[in-house]
Amino acid sequence: MRLLSRLLSAADRISAPLPAHAHCDLPCGVYDPAQARIEAQSVKAIMERYQQNQDPDYRTRCIVIKEQRADLVKHHLWVLWTDYFKPEHLEKVPNLHDLMWRATKAAGQSKGTMDVSVADRLLGLIDEVDAAFKATKS
Amino acid sequence: MRLLSRLLSAADRISAPLPAHAHCDLPCGVYDPAQARIEAQSVKAIMERYQQNQDPDYRTRCIVIKEQRADLVKHHLWVLWTDYFKPEHLEKVPNLHDLMWRATKAAGQSKGTMDVSVADRLLGLIDEVDAAFKATKS
Amino acid sequence: MRLLSRLLSAADRISAPLPAHAHCDLPCGVYDPAQARIEAQSVKAIMERYQQNQDPDYRTRCIVIKEQRADLVKHHLWVLWTDYFKPEHLEKVPNLHDLMWRATKAAGQSKGTMDVSVADRLLGLIDEVDAAFKATKS
Amino acid sequence: MRLLSRLLSAADRISAPLPAHAHCDLPCGVYDPAQARIEAQSVKAIMERYQQNQDPDYRTRCIVIKEQRADLVKHHLWVLWTDYFKPEHLEKVPNLHDLMWRATKAAGQSKGTMDVSVADRLLGLIDEVDAAFKATKS
Amino acid sequence: MRLLSRLLSAADRISAPLPAHAHCDLPCGVYDPAQARIEAQSVKAIMERYQQNQDPDYRTRCIVIKEQRADLVKHHLWVLWTDYFKPEHLEKVPNLHDLMWRATKAAGQSKGTMDVSVADRLLGLIDEVDAAFKATKS
Amino acid sequence: MRLLSRLLSAADRISAPLPAHAHCDLPCGVYDPAQARIEAQSVKAIMERYQQNQDPDYRTRCIVIKEQRADLVKHHLWVLWTDYFKPEHLEKVPNLHDLMWRATKAAGQSKGTMDVSVADRLLGLIDEVDAAFKATKS
Repeated sequence: MRLLSRLLSAADRISAPLPAHAHCDLPCGVYDPAQARIEAQSVKAIMERYQQNQDPDYRTRCIVIKEQRADLVKHHLWVLWTDYFKPEHLEKVPNLHDLMWRATKAAGQSKGTMDVSVADRLLGLIDEVDAAFKATKS
Repeated sequence: MRLLSRLLSAADRISAPLPAHAHCDLPCGVYDPAQARIEAQSVKAIMERYQQNQDPDYRTRCIVIKEQRADLVKHHLWVLWTDYFKPEHLEKVPNLHDLMWRATKAAGQSKGTMDVSVADRLLGLIDEVDAAFKATKS
Repeated sequence: MRLLSRLLSAADRISAPLPAHAHCDLPCGVYDPAQARIEAQSVKAIMERYQQNQDPDYRTRCIVIKEQRADLVKHHLWVLWTDYFKPEHLEKVPNLHDLMWRATKAAGQSKGTMDVSVADRLLGLIDEVDAAFKATKS
Repeated sequence: MRLLSRLLSAADRISAPLPAHAHCDLPCGVYDPAQARIEAQSVKAIMERYQQNQDPDYRTRCIVIKEQRADLVKHHLWVLWTDYFKPEHLEKVPNLHDLMWRATKAAGQSKGTMDVSVADRLLGLIDEVDAAFKATKS
Repeated sequence: MRLLSRLLSAADRISAPLPAHAHCDLPCGVYDPAQARIEAQSVKAIMERYQQNQDPDYRTRCIVIKEQRADLVKHHLWVLWTDYFKPEHLEKVPNLHDLMWRATKAAGQSKGTMDVSVADRLLGLIDEVDAAFKATKS
Repeated sequence: MRLLSRLLSAADRISAPLPAHAHCDLPCGVYDPAQARIEAQSVKAIMERYQQNQDPDYRTRCIVIKEQRADLVKHHLWVLWTDYFKPEHLEKVPNLHDLMWRATKAAGQSKGTMDVSVADRLLGLIDEVDAAFKATKS
């Protein structure tokens, strides 16, 4: 199995590398919009499960857990905005502040609704953040 | 800029999709070994910065922040082990428990050292976990 | 009163010492399955109160607080598994991984139900963990 | 092994039950001074390890982790003071407030020193709290 | 705008300084009852919104968030009691322990009710704590 | 004493009210820049104590605690930026995004230095945020 695992791991490295995006002038300089995206996908999944389940206790848990996940989305986006992005990046991403504001506000809105379209909009904004992130790396 | 951002985002979707791995029988069923990997890369980056900087206060911060990051690695691995992996996965990943044990123990060891090879071993184990994760999804 | 308190304290030491289980090769090497057990007892108590109270707001609080307590059970069990238990313990506790997996999974299941029997099963598994803990100390 | 584990568990239940102390008029009504004691023992153990190890990075980790553990001691004591103890308990424990104040202050002092006698004093005060706890249960 | 902002800021400094209350014999010696008050005002505001909104999901969120805010009230009060107040302050505030006990208990009670009068009582007790705080500073 | 306390409290209300700034369209709609300011004052106080104390363990604690306090500054500023400020506020505070960016970045910089002037700059920026906050309330 150890061998199989290693082979799968090697195959994985060839076909679909999931690179981390390292940034180097801070002690903990590793940033990756995937952190916000994973939590936002969790937000969306919880909304979908909520819609499919009428049990009130289950729905209460959906609300509670979604609240935490949406908070993590906000946190990861804030870290990107304040820690990763630098003044010189504004040349390549002139709408950075507005984009990050709309993204974090969408994360906040996703707390108070079970409307999947809000999560989809949030995921779309995180895609834009990811594009801005990639555009400013080299 | 909005257009540029969207174009970059669209281009990104074509060239390097970063798929989230969704699991569906729980309220918050989104799992992704990337969460553990990103924190482990942070652990490694902190070790490297520590080696290159003699300032004692900077080094203290490295120790403090690495402690937190390594804790997050453990947390994300534990969640995969307990929440994502199911008894039926043991057929495809018979060494699952041993693998997760070594991975979480390596994360713990990375707290007490600035030896980059420990972080590399941790990252290798997370690659194996990622392979096991992919092998059990369909 | 100071005297009464001291007398009670002294009497307590004689009749019912609650020993802590110290482990010595790590900086914070004190482990005790009581930490998981206390939180699991809280999980069970919340389930019982929920059954006896129809007020929807009270029940919502039961769900929220139980979610947190069950999370702490998982955390304390994970720490025992990764930090306390060592490879040499597998001789005395060959089913360690399976036991810890079932225990942490039971803690996870206790989040999604108000069925007291799930908490009882969780407490039974923590008893087994406690037995494994004691069997490996000397 | 399952059988051995169960036998050990059964033997354990007979020889050394570690009862939890349940309190019943709140949703999460399980209290146990063991929670504060375990963290205080961790504080003491860290001080001892610090004294025996000259490595500056190791010592930094001792300081960091002790800070967290002492904080948990304070938290668990505060919960007992505010949530478990009731006005009617003041008859049996007239010095309750002064005892809890000295205990939480000792926990705070244990953050700023590596003097084991401070941890011993803290543990003594937690023993007194435990006695007050037992004196007020029935 | 930068100028406007600075003018507003300057005007603000003259008309309504919001002084922080510094205490100097500890590493993090800044205390301010405003921290507890702000969270208690949040508790009250949530109760009011709950009363005005019948949507069950909204109400669940009210319960969840109020639980967290009330917890922060308790935390900030505990810190004042254990860290800021010193034995010599008992001369000026002989009822300190009873006051802090009632205040933290009121914060706990505010978790289990949507009765605004409980939040008002809590805010009144925080005012008394603030008065004790000011009476012991010089 | 109860009377004295109430009199002091009443006197306090007359002479120096510390109003909370309530915002009303969210469940937890209470905002106050004082939260960020208090933590920033703690950051500054820790820096000053660090400069006055040569003990290496004390200095390590200063670094650790300042890290946490600076994190809280960032958190409170982020909440103001994302949750309190609305698009219509940009008319009165056209430099809002740049101001908040510089303020949160200054909070981040205060983690990596013991230079009190960095904390002073941070406090100055929080004053500007407070002015923007007041300018947008009515």
